[in-house]
Amino acid sequence: MTSALHYLIAVRRCEMGELEQLLHTSTLVRQLGALIHALQAERGLSNIVLASGGQRGTSVRLAQVQTADRCTAQLHQALAQLDLNAFQGGHGARLFNHIAYVLQGLDALPALRQQVSALALTPDAATAAYIRLIAGLLAVVFEAADSATEPGISRLLVAMFHFMQGKELAGQERATGAAAFGSGRSQAARQQHWLHLIDAQERCFQVFADCAPATPLALWEKTQHHNPELLVIERMRRMGCTAATGQALDAELSTPWFEACTARMDALYAIEVQLADELQQRCTAQLQAARQAPEPRALLQRSAGAGDAPAPAAPDGLPDFFHAPAPETTLQLGNSLAPQLGQSVLSLVQEQSQRLRAMQAELETVRSALTERKTLERAKGLLMAHRQLSESEAHKLLRQTAMNQNRRLIDVAEAVLAMADLLPPAQG
Amino acid sequence: MTSALHYLIAVRRCEMGELEQLLHTSTLVRQLGALIHALQAERGLSNIVLASGGQRGTSVRLAQVQTADRCTAQLHQALAQLDLNAFQGGHGARLFNHIAYVLQGLDALPALRQQVSALALTPDAATAAYIRLIAGLLAVVFEAADSATEPGISRLLVAMFHFMQGKELAGQERATGAAAFGSGRSQAARQQHWLHLIDAQERCFQVFADCAPATPLALWEKTQHHNPELLVIERMRRMGCTAATGQALDAELSTPWFEACTARMDALYAIEVQLADELQQRCTAQLQAARQAPEPRALLQRSAGAGDAPAPAAPDGLPDFFHAPAPETTLQLGNSLAPQLGQSVLSLVQEQSQRLRAMQAELETVRSALTERKTLERAKGLLMAHRQLSESEAHKLLRQTAMNQNRRLIDVAEAVLAMADLLPPAQG
Repeated sequence: MTSALHYLIAVRRCEMGELEQLLHTSTLVRQLGALIHALQAERGLSNIVLASGGQRGTSVRLAQVQTADRCTAQLHQALAQLDLNAFQGGHGARLFNHIAYVLQGLDALPALRQQVSALALTPDAATAAYIRLIAGLLAVVFEAADSATEPGISRLLVAMFHFMQGKELAGQERATGAAAFGSGRSQAARQQHWLHLIDAQERCFQVFADCAPATPLALWEKTQHHNPELLVIERMRRMGCTAATGQALDAELSTPWFEACTARMDALYAIEVQLADELQQRCTAQLQAARQAPEPRALLQRSAGAGDAPAPAAPDGLPDFFHAPAPETTLQLGNSLAPQLGQSVLSLVQEQSQRLRAMQAELETVRSALTERKTLERAKGLLMAHRQLSESEAHKLLRQTAMNQNRRLIDVAEAVLAMADLLPPAQG
Repeated sequence: MTSALHYLIAVRRCEMGELEQLLHTSTLVRQLGALIHALQAERGLSNIVLASGGQRGTSVRLAQVQTADRCTAQLHQALAQLDLNAFQGGHGARLFNHIAYVLQGLDALPALRQQVSALALTPDAATAAYIRLIAGLLAVVFEAADSATEPGISRLLVAMFHFMQGKELAGQERATGAAAFGSGRSQAARQQHWLHLIDAQERCFQVFADCAPATPLALWEKTQHHNPELLVIERMRRMGCTAATGQALDAELSTPWFEACTARMDALYAIEVQLADELQQRCTAQLQAARQAPEPRALLQRSAGAGDAPAPAAPDGLPDFFHAPAPETTLQLGNSLAPQLGQSVLSLVQEQSQRLRAMQAELETVRSALTERKTLERAKGLLMAHRQLSESEAHKLLRQTAMNQNRRLIDVAEAVLAMADLLPPAQG
């Protein structure tokens, strides 16, 4: 009796520990988002400085560098709050490794900024460097989402990651469009990349919309429908993406494009902050509810007071254990019950089982978006390495194969991974 | 620099902690297997005692009860070795809840035995009670397999769980066949259940064969091909399962059937012990290798001795971080490299990334067997609850639907779960 109770208490500790950790993770994700937003702005301003040969944007850029540095300091604080011992096994290892990578990137940031200040980089090279750093920050968010096991919070983290990733792709689209208009000429490769960024963005925002709670979703839908910037952006997308190769593009459009995209990035960030609020509120509320819930020992008090007398015998004289439904088969029979005083250990175990299994089923549904993303990224990586393709080419190849074969993108990606051993060895 | 190293050390701690925990888990799984084997024998002997009205098997059964009690004591020791704090989140919660359930079952075992000794139960009721207790023990093994994140060990645990589950189904088949021959009459419902037990066994052993390492696999294949008991069993299976309803069965066959099945159970247990040895050896070896591997700090020593001078600048003047392949895309480029002295933090991070991602991909492949099992069990549970079916009826319905629609069993199970909300509410 006592020792079953011992494990029931351990169940509770697992769930409380998870919630406490998720609260810290949420703060970390929020700070990562703030730093990413600052670096996205810094990337845009660096491009303006570099493209204008230092004629424009210099002082705004320096102010933005300071903002980004403040965000970096806050990120370090959030990292210091994490209890490293609370993460274990494969998830913990991947999370920490991503963090180590990102810290290396942040250490390398001053050198990047120096090269921008010295006008020693092309806009494309600077963009690529910022993209790499931001991708590292986003990988930390992905891993945080992937390691959560509380389904409601996991769903919010999935929404959050896809929103942040979509926003980053929108930022890359800003740079690609600015470079296209700025160059004054349409280029097929750049157009293809541009279309890829639009397509990938929309898939990310779709996952966000599928998983997001009401408040940020309403804000998102509002910005999708009543948005003068989006109209400007769509018009310029059409001009930029449909022009034949070599056709002239109006270089004057570079500035309005950049400004409309920047307004859009700020609007997206406002939604992201809403989502981060929701995430932290949810963690706090669930933690509070868990702390106020009666402990397993308290629920047993009444029956303990009645002594350890065996339960009234069933007709066959066997204890309750052999009659109560086994935890394996109770999942579908109803919703979880509120715990009541005076329960037996067995009924507590059964309620827990039911709840835990329902949670696991829900979690698996929520996480399918992350699993699909991993599969897709791995298939793209494989094609990039073995066929020397760019990311957008690899993505296009997968998409065209899916369309030709009338299969889902994810099925084609799985097929690519399944035949990985048949591919020629990677060069490079 | 220091703080990236801090997280690299945390990566290592995660992996070492996982291996240490897996070593304890392996011991636990071995003890669970020993107790299950003892309870399976006790179940068989209880049936003989009950079916013969106490004329046969009484003293052998009492000796077997003592064996089972010794196994229970060893299981308690293995449980005491587990560091409860090392399990977290959903996996930890489910594992502990299953353990709490099983401890309740073990507390209820003396009452079951009393009823058997008093001849106050039918053989079927006693069988059902033991099945429930053993199912609880197997659920702990399943959860242990499901929570492992080291792919090689996870693969062994998947093999182990399926082998143990297959062996338990073989034990249930022993009871079903003995009851069939003992009753002297063929019954359609019992035949259907018998066929289900054979089919489910074979699927379990197939997963084992797909995942098992060479030594236990060779032993398994030997017992499959050179096995006089299996020939006896197959012959009696044919007699028992093809007889028309109401047709007489030779009650004399009950004893040779039981003995052949018992010999088979012992042979299966010998393979299980091999598998458990392999599991513990693998954990020990990997843990030793991990302990002997140089620490991240040691790998950096040489470059630290050379001071923190920045790496030689690339043509664009940017640090290495912006040129080295990002961890996201390096997975497919080759196998993990042996760590070398004098590496940069960045290259350590990249090697870790590559290794961790390869491990995660491998783990997902290994665990697909567990995921399929969960999906199938959930779909069966749903059908059992909503259509008032027995487990074998639910399984038969799924299998027939799959055959009729020419789809895989797992796809039909997924479809059933997807339309769960459309089903009428469960009665009961």
